[in-house]
Amino acid sequence: MRKYNVAIVGATGAVGQELLKILAERSFPYGRLSLLASERSEGKTITFQGREHQVRATTTDSFEGVDIVLFAGGSAAVEFAPAAVKAGAVVIDNGSSFRYDDAVPLVVPEVNPEDVRWHQGIIANPNCSTIQMVVALKPLHDAARIKRVVVSTYQAVSGAGLPGLHELERQAADITAGRAVKVEAFQHQIAFNLIPQIDKLQDNLYYREEMKMVWETQKMLHDPHIRVCATCVRVPVFRSHSESVNVETERKLSVEETRELLRNAPGVKVIDDPAASEYPMPFYTCDTDDVYVGRIREDISCDNGIAMWVVADQIRKGAATNAIQIAELLVKEGLV
Amino acid sequence: MRKYNVAIVGATGAVGQELLKILAERSFPYGRLSLLASERSEGKTITFQGREHQVRATTTDSFEGVDIVLFAGGSAAVEFAPAAVKAGAVVIDNGSSFRYDDAVPLVVPEVNPEDVRWHQGIIANPNCSTIQMVVALKPLHDAARIKRVVVSTYQAVSGAGLPGLHELERQAADITAGRAVKVEAFQHQIAFNLIPQIDKLQDNLYYREEMKMVWETQKMLHDPHIRVCATCVRVPVFRSHSESVNVETERKLSVEETRELLRNAPGVKVIDDPAASEYPMPFYTCDTDDVYVGRIREDISCDNGIAMWVVADQIRKGAATNAIQIAELLVKEGLV
Repeated sequence: MRKYNVAIVGATGAVGQELLKILAERSFPYGRLSLLASERSEGKTITFQGREHQVRATTTDSFEGVDIVLFAGGSAAVEFAPAAVKAGAVVIDNGSSFRYDDAVPLVVPEVNPEDVRWHQGIIANPNCSTIQMVVALKPLHDAARIKRVVVSTYQAVSGAGLPGLHELERQAADITAGRAVKVEAFQHQIAFNLIPQIDKLQDNLYYREEMKMVWETQKMLHDPHIRVCATCVRVPVFRSHSESVNVETERKLSVEETRELLRNAPGVKVIDDPAASEYPMPFYTCDTDDVYVGRIREDISCDNGIAMWVVADQIRKGAATNAIQIAELLVKEGLV
Repeated sequence: MRKYNVAIVGATGAVGQELLKILAERSFPYGRLSLLASERSEGKTITFQGREHQVRATTTDSFEGVDIVLFAGGSAAVEFAPAAVKAGAVVIDNGSSFRYDDAVPLVVPEVNPEDVRWHQGIIANPNCSTIQMVVALKPLHDAARIKRVVVSTYQAVSGAGLPGLHELERQAADITAGRAVKVEAFQHQIAFNLIPQIDKLQDNLYYREEMKMVWETQKMLHDPHIRVCATCVRVPVFRSHSESVNVETERKLSVEETRELLRNAPGVKVIDDPAASEYPMPFYTCDTDDVYVGRIREDISCDNGIAMWVVADQIRKGAATNAIQIAELLVKEGLV
């Protein structure tokens, strides 16, 4: 069986670590593994599947003989993806730099796997909050055509990487011990608080995280007419994003049909027994790969509407798992 | 100046304690003060404005000579409000037992003060999550007629009283110290988690807290045609509820007009400088009486829509302050 040489850029971060874990879990047929990061991390070692790997600083020469380059996030791909593509590798970028480029496919394998076929060297991994939403929207769109989505998010601190995670841990410990709180990773204190801001402000008064959910949903569902309004809020949860989603469709979907569509949808697990207080919750979905949907009910504020609650581990399905699934798709389709 | 004899039923709970605090803060002209609670609390003493008050068990004989009875919450009013009214008192009930009774006004003084006039002995104080929302909706409804509201809430644990507050404190301390977590006040662990359930399930698959926001909004805005869909979520925040609110109006409101309407609305404070990361947050609105609105922007998913973020201390404006404001209104209008 053919093996693929894999490079991970940003191997020391939250998503980078998860990429390694998932490569192993899913037995991805990797050959040579290059763990790359910024110069700061040069010389660190990472033990993976019984072998010590040296972390090296990423340079334009890092990609000779590499088949697949996984960029964990940030803007590293802007600097290094062209060199990787030139060296013959396929890039899967978890950052947002290429997502809105018409020449770059943006892919969630359960939603638009066909889009990997027209890649020209770079495939973008969508934003975490969009991934879990479109996995749940796709079967509803196919069945009844979505016209409008109103979503409010409840996003975990690890969406801001390990610094976000450590900040909530430290602030919670400081507050419960009566010590003063330091604010570093976020704009304000996040422990026992909510911050209705993720990413930078746009001209239309939406923060960029909110607009990502608009742009990426339209791109992956291949429908610029779907109107999306998002409010993105950081909450004091370590891991797994949650979303309150109101969907309006052209054809009316009953609650029963929606449940059935979601039960049969790839990558979705329905947890929906509200009488027994069973619904998805972020504390209990950590370290899983599915998108969990519950609280499915008629949206009583419009004629053809469904309201639902969508939770997923945003480091796994929202980032690392989705990236590895794209790599698997490339392998399966012989595109690498 | 006339003094009014006041009884507080549920004086030992979170809202009861706040009622006392606010009576003092706002210099309400109280005369004799009766602090009542369940039999469990009989014999406790509460020191208030330099005087010791014995807490007594509530009975049907507790209301002789009382002018105003403030029920802090729960269903105590079902048992005791008739006796209070019979004794000549006016009841202000923070519980939900009378809110949907057509013969009982449901009042937020900034929204529908005129409704106190037709009281027949009982006035209902609305649900916390509804109060803060309608204070922000009222000026928009008056100016442009609201057709539809989609709201997702982020509700603090003290909405479940002192037991909710202590549960988050204890769970956060246990988790940061690596101890096992006990679940008592809520259906599931709340520390570092989210629970998309508040109150009991209804036949339409909404939890009752969500339906309260529908019924009470329609009742107080005197418009049964306003369609409301709510998703109510408990979050690990001690105090102050937050709400992501999408409003559709008959006439289009610009962001500028909406800001201006809200700036001039009674009981509202606009905090809205997203470029400077200024918006309302629950950690910073505790112990205040206003409804804070920020993140005001066009709802880009519909033609005539506004999205906004509404935060208020749900124990104060969402319960105790509103109840005392109703009492003040009764005094001002000579209705007690």
